[in-house]
Amino acid sequence: MSDKDEREIHRIRELESINLARDEIRDLVIETKKKVERENDALAEQINNVFKQHKIRSYDIVGAIGAGKTALLEKISERISQKYRMLVICGDITTRVDAARIERHNAETIQINTGRECALNAYHIYRIINNKDLTNYDVIFIENVGNLICPSDFSLGTDKRVVVVSTTEGEWVVEKHPMLFKLSDIAVINKIDLAERLGTNIDKMVNDAKKINPNIIVITTSAKTNENIDQLIKILGL
Amino acid sequence: MSDKDEREIHRIRELESINLARDEIRDLVIETKKKVERENDALAEQINNVFKQHKIRSYDIVGAIGAGKTALLEKISERISQKYRMLVICGDITTRVDAARIERHNAETIQINTGRECALNAYHIYRIINNKDLTNYDVIFIENVGNLICPSDFSLGTDKRVVVVSTTEGEWVVEKHPMLFKLSDIAVINKIDLAERLGTNIDKMVNDAKKINPNIIVITTSAKTNENIDQLIKILGL
Repeated sequence: MSDKDEREIHRIRELESINLARDEIRDLVIETKKKVERENDALAEQINNVFKQHKIRSYDIVGAIGAGKTALLEKISERISQKYRMLVICGDITTRVDAARIERHNAETIQINTGRECALNAYHIYRIINNKDLTNYDVIFIENVGNLICPSDFSLGTDKRVVVVSTTEGEWVVEKHPMLFKLSDIAVINKIDLAERLGTNIDKMVNDAKKINPNIIVITTSAKTNENIDQLIKILGL
Repeated sequence: MSDKDEREIHRIRELESINLARDEIRDLVIETKKKVERENDALAEQINNVFKQHKIRSYDIVGAIGAGKTALLEKISERISQKYRMLVICGDITTRVDAARIERHNAETIQINTGRECALNAYHIYRIINNKDLTNYDVIFIENVGNLICPSDFSLGTDKRVVVVSTTEGEWVVEKHPMLFKLSDIAVINKIDLAERLGTNIDKMVNDAKKINPNIIVITTSAKTNENIDQLIKILGL
């Protein structure tokens, strides 16, 4: 067996490791997940219809902790909150730090604390929009829980999904999380002001994103220096 | 109603948002989770017994993508792989980037690709140690999937859990993720070489960790400049 074959078998064994749980439990887990996803998708569709009826433009912002989702939303709010009536829904395990930061920039905010849930789901959003008069808003941003994995399981019914990563996460971060890049419309590579200092290869990150999803629009930004923030707003169609 | 009362009610409403899913599905989800956790805990206990029988010291390293888990393990391996026979198990959604980085430093590595799972669980580890001759190792490190939330649900049977965060994740990162700090023995605050440039308040991070878990040992490090790496190894008891 050649080295190459051996590596290939190793790779396949690694992939098989997905199926490690005991059969009985595994079936239950898969069945439960399927049910939850079906329910979620149906609800997400309802939510999207409601947004459309109210001519609200909506965005689901996903990314790991520290990627700069909140900082970008602060910069965006600063620039557009005079023009549009904004609602920003912030998801976190606990605390209302993010909502407090964003509402300083004239955007209305709601914080959702998910407890131990690692992503927002359509129920969270459904409950909120049922308790709000949606004629009051032009734009809704949803800042998802800081996590590059779980949000891919739950559509929230927004028009667009935006995935944010940063140069401090290392140049492998895109390649390591293909699912969210496959399922997003826009990819933001943030903290480009730190790339040189960190030696991060931004081109690799951009290319990986396009390789995973040829339709994704990629933009590099710095929420700190404001680089490309106006361009990001344009890409969002705002 | 005073402003304070209003804020308190708002806070409670936010906490209630945990229970958003439809009742029928919610019961199924909770039941499934409980079963999975029970199975996992029983298996984790078996794993720990096996480690103890073989006098292997074992560590579960958790933290978000980009916190520096792999970089720290590279530095640790560099320093101790002559003294101890090491096995490093790396968990990731996909790719074997981390294992490839670490094995350059004379540590044996295994990569587990979890597919869409956001954390390693005891089954992953159980399967690996069943296929390994454990008399060959003194120390086992498990680098968990990059995620500050999900790994708290699954004990892996290691002696110690080490949570790694970095200054680039923002000074709120500890406060926002209490669960993993509650369940860890050691907290590493990494990338302190960048703290000044980023304006991150390291003292707040240290204090938050100790407030959440008074028994946790906190150490600040830089895998880049090697600051406090030797001290970290001492804290690990190696």
